[in-house]
Amino acid sequence: MTGINLLGATGSVGRQAIEVIQAHPGHFRLSAMSVGKNIPLARKIIEACQPKVVSVQRKEDCERLKSEYGHRIKFYYGEEGLAEVAAFSEGEIFLNGISGAVGIVPTIRAIEAGKRVALANKETLVTAGHIVMKKAEERRVPIIPVDSEHSAIFQALQGERRKNIEKIILTASGGSFRDKKREELADVTVEDALKHPNWSMGAKITVDSATMMNKGMEVIEARWLFDLPYDKIAVLLHRESTVHSMVQFHDGSIIAQLGTPDMRIPIQYALTYPDRLPLQAERLDLAKLGVLHFSEMDFDRFRCLRMAYEAGRTGGTMPAVLNAANEEAVHSFLEGKIPFLAIEEWVERAMEQHEPIPDPTLEAVLEADKETRALVRSFLKN
Amino acid sequence: MTGINLLGATGSVGRQAIEVIQAHPGHFRLSAMSVGKNIPLARKIIEACQPKVVSVQRKEDCERLKSEYGHRIKFYYGEEGLAEVAAFSEGEIFLNGISGAVGIVPTIRAIEAGKRVALANKETLVTAGHIVMKKAEERRVPIIPVDSEHSAIFQALQGERRKNIEKIILTASGGSFRDKKREELADVTVEDALKHPNWSMGAKITVDSATMMNKGMEVIEARWLFDLPYDKIAVLLHRESTVHSMVQFHDGSIIAQLGTPDMRIPIQYALTYPDRLPLQAERLDLAKLGVLHFSEMDFDRFRCLRMAYEAGRTGGTMPAVLNAANEEAVHSFLEGKIPFLAIEEWVERAMEQHEPIPDPTLEAVLEADKETRALVRSFLKN
Repeated sequence: MTGINLLGATGSVGRQAIEVIQAHPGHFRLSAMSVGKNIPLARKIIEACQPKVVSVQRKEDCERLKSEYGHRIKFYYGEEGLAEVAAFSEGEIFLNGISGAVGIVPTIRAIEAGKRVALANKETLVTAGHIVMKKAEERRVPIIPVDSEHSAIFQALQGERRKNIEKIILTASGGSFRDKKREELADVTVEDALKHPNWSMGAKITVDSATMMNKGMEVIEARWLFDLPYDKIAVLLHRESTVHSMVQFHDGSIIAQLGTPDMRIPIQYALTYPDRLPLQAERLDLAKLGVLHFSEMDFDRFRCLRMAYEAGRTGGTMPAVLNAANEEAVHSFLEGKIPFLAIEEWVERAMEQHEPIPDPTLEAVLEADKETRALVRSFLKN
Repeated sequence: MTGINLLGATGSVGRQAIEVIQAHPGHFRLSAMSVGKNIPLARKIIEACQPKVVSVQRKEDCERLKSEYGHRIKFYYGEEGLAEVAAFSEGEIFLNGISGAVGIVPTIRAIEAGKRVALANKETLVTAGHIVMKKAEERRVPIIPVDSEHSAIFQALQGERRKNIEKIILTASGGSFRDKKREELADVTVEDALKHPNWSMGAKITVDSATMMNKGMEVIEARWLFDLPYDKIAVLLHRESTVHSMVQFHDGSIIAQLGTPDMRIPIQYALTYPDRLPLQAERLDLAKLGVLHFSEMDFDRFRCLRMAYEAGRTGGTMPAVLNAANEEAVHSFLEGKIPFLAIEEWVERAMEQHEPIPDPTLEAVLEADKETRALVRSFLKN
């Protein structure tokens, strides 16, 4: 029986992780979890899964739940609560399913506590990959990606030797606006941006797919997860998102992982690795699908992807700036305050104005994050 | 330095194996080889690679080469010569690159001598899989497939557990006549049959691709190589032969191996497994290719595939009958003596007339082979 410490239990990754845990009662139990503000759903999960530690975002929700369940569950709140969930002693696996820079410190706490890390939080590696991977290596803790692309590469690398990798190929669906030309993007709406062709995900990541910033962040994550230089990380447009990603070895052989767009597959794999458990879900039917398309990535059309490679190659605090600027810009776009193309413009301006600090401490990373957010918010006022 | 005992050095697999050996002089040496009747090419290989043991098909060629090189090379001929090459003490890997039932006994000799087996000879597993795999297991000798489809599955299974396989999916290009309807096959010529759309191979196997018997034999081989029941072995039409084959696990995840149609990749992999060495060759360019197609296999259109599943499920001596009848029929077709559709008809008649022997000895397998050939030759006379 493997205990799971889960951050973001009511989010998209978290809910599917709960499904996986409930589908295998003999294998997994939810030992600890964090939720945001969705207290009704939190109650349901508490009653169904009976975790021993629960953290919520707000103090008032913490007090309320404590009065309801206090005798059998330890409650926490805020950022300290996330760290308590991450490091809870009864969990062997820490599944980080929250988004945002707030996910970084709990990941480090979990590594320090010797937990295996199943990582869905992009910001952890994008902004602090150099710190997190070093710590994971020191503690000999495996970092198992949950994202479908990185999970695909992780799966393709099983039984293989890293030295034999020629390149990895991340596939990209192209997002909601893949069939639009650049000049057609000026007037697109939030509603349009949220229609992802293949995957059902949160609003932020769906917009990041449309700008291709999501793929850009995946490139930076891949650099850390697989310890590869950027010229060995390629991106290929693949409309159907059926080939989730690939590894090309130096003998020319390519190993790919394919599947339906069902996030339970990579989530469960991160929990069962190196084994696999059965998963009741629709199977990929290639004959029914009939055709798979592949084409070159256009770095002029998708400037966010080009900027992500630049930020990654620059290194230091630059990826944290890329991420923070993007998060603020997407937030403003989703609130209807700025047009779609302003997202990449804001990210570009923030990167231009930043003087990167090489090999930064976690504090310096978080400081760059904070400063960038303030800077980008000032763009809105001007 | 790994010594290679190679059967069929002047054939299609053999010549490419020599290329691989010569590309890695620090890793491999040709310790022993067999050739057929191509003595000029044999001389070139002898001079370039200096094997210590050479076997030829005919006694007169053996005598001639002995008089030329006798002081530094041991020469053999005929079937006993093949066994000498297979078991030669200085080779760690036995690469079986000949076709036909004559490849079975040398494989067994190599296993008995504790060699790792790189297997391109289909007949070994199709007709005697139950004997060969048992012996390989007893001696703890790995059997590494060289065929692109089985190599793909073997590669996809690295780091995975066999118990988690839901099914394997062999891809089939459809062969020379894939765009023809059944009724259009009556008058096709030998020349038409030899135009394979993707792979450049020998005449026999190209015809077997057109009848889909090649895929049928691969299904039977897969049953033995991967120890799977036939209902876990599927075949999918895939025109481009880019996805060489796939494994679907019980969590719904699919691992596939892809590449160009370059046989040096699986040949080299069989020699370097579980490592990989660099191979200078064209890389697969999915963006340039643009589209991959997949469709259901039609068992009425390709009756040889259906018969192969039947022979496999019946087991015993039946697969040997399938193989022998097909070999004779294809031979007659290539000589212009029978029409294309007579191949499947002859195989069907041979199978109908055979009373299968369960769990046969090697002698019984070879006897069924011999009897079937005589029977099928008698079809020609009537």
